[in-house]
Amino acid sequence: MRMAELSRESGVPVATIKYYLREGLLPPGERTSPNQARYGDGHVRRLKLVRALLDVGGLSIASVRDVLDAIDSGVHTHDTLGIAQRRIPLPTAQADDETRGWATAVVARIAAERGWKVTPGSPVVESLIGTLCTFASLGRTELVDRISDYADLAERTAEVDLDSVRGMSTMESVVEGAVVGTVIGDAMLMTLRRLAQQQVSARRFPRTG
Amino acid sequence: MRMAELSRESGVPVATIKYYLREGLLPPGERTSPNQARYGDGHVRRLKLVRALLDVGGLSIASVRDVLDAIDSGVHTHDTLGIAQRRIPLPTAQADDETRGWATAVVARIAAERGWKVTPGSPVVESLIGTLCTFASLGRTELVDRISDYADLAERTAEVDLDSVRGMSTMESVVEGAVVGTVIGDAMLMTLRRLAQQQVSARRFPRTG
Repeated sequence: MRMAELSRESGVPVATIKYYLREGLLPPGERTSPNQARYGDGHVRRLKLVRALLDVGGLSIASVRDVLDAIDSGVHTHDTLGIAQRRIPLPTAQADDETRGWATAVVARIAAERGWKVTPGSPVVESLIGTLCTFASLGRTELVDRISDYADLAERTAEVDLDSVRGMSTMESVVEGAVVGTVIGDAMLMTLRRLAQQQVSARRFPRTG
Repeated sequence: MRMAELSRESGVPVATIKYYLREGLLPPGERTSPNQARYGDGHVRRLKLVRALLDVGGLSIASVRDVLDAIDSGVHTHDTLGIAQRRIPLPTAQADDETRGWATAVVARIAAERGWKVTPGSPVVESLIGTLCTFASLGRTELVDRISDYADLAERTAEVDLDSVRGMSTMESVVEGAVVGTVIGDAMLMTLRRLAQQQVSARRFPRTG
């Protein structure tokens, strides 16, 4: 199909498609003349993925490019989630040594409680330490006080996640599935959390007259 | 304190502080001469909050301003979480009527299963429908197939969240606590999910020599 049809099929404006082509988020079409190229269903699919990662996942252009590289490398291993995880950025935060020491001890305690193996210095551990330091710098450690409960719920969530990844093993790209499950999954869990908060809040504080 | 000291105390560069002042993210200091102003501990605290919401929470400048307005309005009601929720943006997604119909039915089923009261058209319901549509448009509905499990875990998470909010009731600003718990809490839960995925993955697929 031509650019105009690709735009219709994907719902992405032509100017935006051209931008993605320049940024390397979309492979070039098959050139049919100096000014025209032909695009296929793979381009439609890729455009939808790019939009999902940018708009719903909130990833940057650079992060999307990095994630797509991982998907296109065609790796199929049991480390699928690891590959997806390493390419998807996590929040980071600065902190003084004392606060970092406290946060590192919290993570070590959780790991010991649950028998988790954590790799000091790994991006996910650093990010977790960063969020704990952020709570501390704001003087708001109520959620950190309940981190054992949250860690327990995170483990149950991960069990469901891994069940999903297993179901993906027959699909086109396992890495793509893990990326979508992680990034769009985060968005789904975030909204479910909000919706559930409304329910629990209404139950605990019923409106009277 | 003067601007230079405010910068040292908060760890935020002077140029950035000036930018936040122009953008209305930080209230002006007390003017002591035409070219100088004095800042207090409240400014240090506010700067840390702004940085946390921007850097760790990933909020936009406009969203941070909106959230700060809610905090500064000084509301103290049982609808604290609601106020925080309405100001914190959620991902949205476009979809065709058929896909929207399917996603709306999924949300209705979950609500019926769990006795949740959902308000059709509310931002959080629209966002949830949007993420489900995103999964569908990508041909990846494995996580949606397990949404009952995720909804159950979200409700347990919300129970812990509400316990935390109760602990915040004596603090300076209840709305600030709810905002921090929601935004930085999302970041913490996201990293805990990644860390837990590593554990479950290692358990299910042990490396053999």
